[in-house]
Amino acid sequence: MANFMDVHSGFFGVTAEQLREAHERDLAIEQDEGVHFTRAWLDPDSGKAFCLSSGPSRESVMRIHERAGHPTAEVYALLIEVS
Amino acid sequence: MANFMDVHSGFFGVTAEQLREAHERDLAIEQDEGVHFTRAWLDPDSGKAFCLSSGPSRESVMRIHERAGHPTAEVYALLIEVS
Repeated sequence: MANFMDVHSGFFGVTAEQLREAHERDLAIEQDEGVHFTRAWLDPDSGKAFCLSSGPSRESVMRIHERAGHPTAEVYALLIEVS
Repeated sequence: MANFMDVHSGFFGVTAEQLREAHERDLAIEQDEGVHFTRAWLDPDSGKAFCLSSGPSRESVMRIHERAGHPTAEVYALLIEVS
């Protein structure tokens, strides 16, 4: 298991309710791939969204996002973290 | 105050110790701008780093990163969050 950050572009003007709906579509199927999406953030002015997840691979994260209707190729393995 | 995500590119092969040193350079001066950097993540293979922070403005985050030696123009205001 590893942690991942994925980036989505083009989410201009998306509302909190719409982001929650999109996130819940991920949560509804994430177990199929052993993924868990922990947080999602959005800058509606730039259209950028970020999701933090854990899972077995980049591809597993990508498959859940694709099936949930918001595919992205930008999934980064967060091998190093500081806080 | 708002939350921000910033993205850095080109951090290929950076180690955990190097990321910690970079993060600590931010922490050492962040109060000058009323910013706080809470977490930083790195994918050393793609060279992408992400920092989560809170502060008064995008510009305040950018000024701290610039003074700490790792400037970026990619700072996003996370007006919407779900978890």
